[in-house]
Amino acid sequence: MPEFEALLKEKIRSIPDYPKKGVIFRDITPLLKDYYSFSMCIDELASEFEGEKIDYVVGIEARGFIIGGALAEKLGVGFIPIRKKGKLPYKKVSIDYELEYGKETIEVHEDAVEKGSRVLIVDDLLATGGTAKAAADLMQKVGARVVGLGFLVELGDMKGKKKLDGARIVSLAKY
Amino acid sequence: MPEFEALLKEKIRSIPDYPKKGVIFRDITPLLKDYYSFSMCIDELASEFEGEKIDYVVGIEARGFIIGGALAEKLGVGFIPIRKKGKLPYKKVSIDYELEYGKETIEVHEDAVEKGSRVLIVDDLLATGGTAKAAADLMQKVGARVVGLGFLVELGDMKGKKKLDGARIVSLAKY
Repeated sequence: MPEFEALLKEKIRSIPDYPKKGVIFRDITPLLKDYYSFSMCIDELASEFEGEKIDYVVGIEARGFIIGGALAEKLGVGFIPIRKKGKLPYKKVSIDYELEYGKETIEVHEDAVEKGSRVLIVDDLLATGGTAKAAADLMQKVGARVVGLGFLVELGDMKGKKKLDGARIVSLAKY
Repeated sequence: MPEFEALLKEKIRSIPDYPKKGVIFRDITPLLKDYYSFSMCIDELASEFEGEKIDYVVGIEARGFIIGGALAEKLGVGFIPIRKKGKLPYKKVSIDYELEYGKETIEVHEDAVEKGSRVLIVDDLLATGGTAKAAADLMQKVGARVVGLGFLVELGDMKGKKKLDGARIVSLAKY
């Protein structure tokens, strides 16, 4: 494990049996609180995608907004929110996808990006990849080219990566 | 109206009769999308609170996360999330408050800040001030000193400011 990843993991709190028995929740709030660690993550994601001519950072509600806001500021590009159903006020495009328990819907404004815009999607966590895949499909529906996806944490045993072929994936702390 | 505010308002989309008839919704997504406007807001909030020795930026879920993430990165401090009920995984402190229709609860981790930490709370919108007041009270409950509150948009006719005496309030676009 690289030193960088070991440093991050020191700041990620593991909470056993949350949200249900047998699951270990990886809590990034201590990492976000520590500027040194948080900015190290943002710098790392920025440098990974530096050469990709990113037009917009797209954040997935809600924790993806924290990372996305900071990364857009760092990269010097605009920010686009992907939100849960019923939260965006203007004309929207939606996508439904399956979760472990039931269905979920995410949305983006239909005029969120210009056709062909190169976007980087970010969220805190890559697990099954269901939300990330839906977010990438959604951005393609509104005409974006998804150049990459960036995550703070990856739960590797859930094989999230397999669902996101075609776009470059970077995750900083793997479990 | 200062030129800066006029520029911002050009990027804020007004949506009539949303979420209900007679209400004009101020949609900041075009502003966030435009890096020039978004970074101008972040720079302005940063410079307003530059001398205040801020230890942490506190963002209110969900749009406050976008602004808060970017502002924490800009100010070089950590980020603390205030979330809606049931979203935080660790030991929490809660506060209930009244909204126009019914009650709302927001939460923060009990170890979110060290006692006496100087915090700046941010959100997209100041309207009645109910959420902002609850957020300030919540941060005080966990031992923070609320130095200021920053907003992109203020609906001035709703007298939100009156409820937040004691902490400095900055809002960038007033309606």
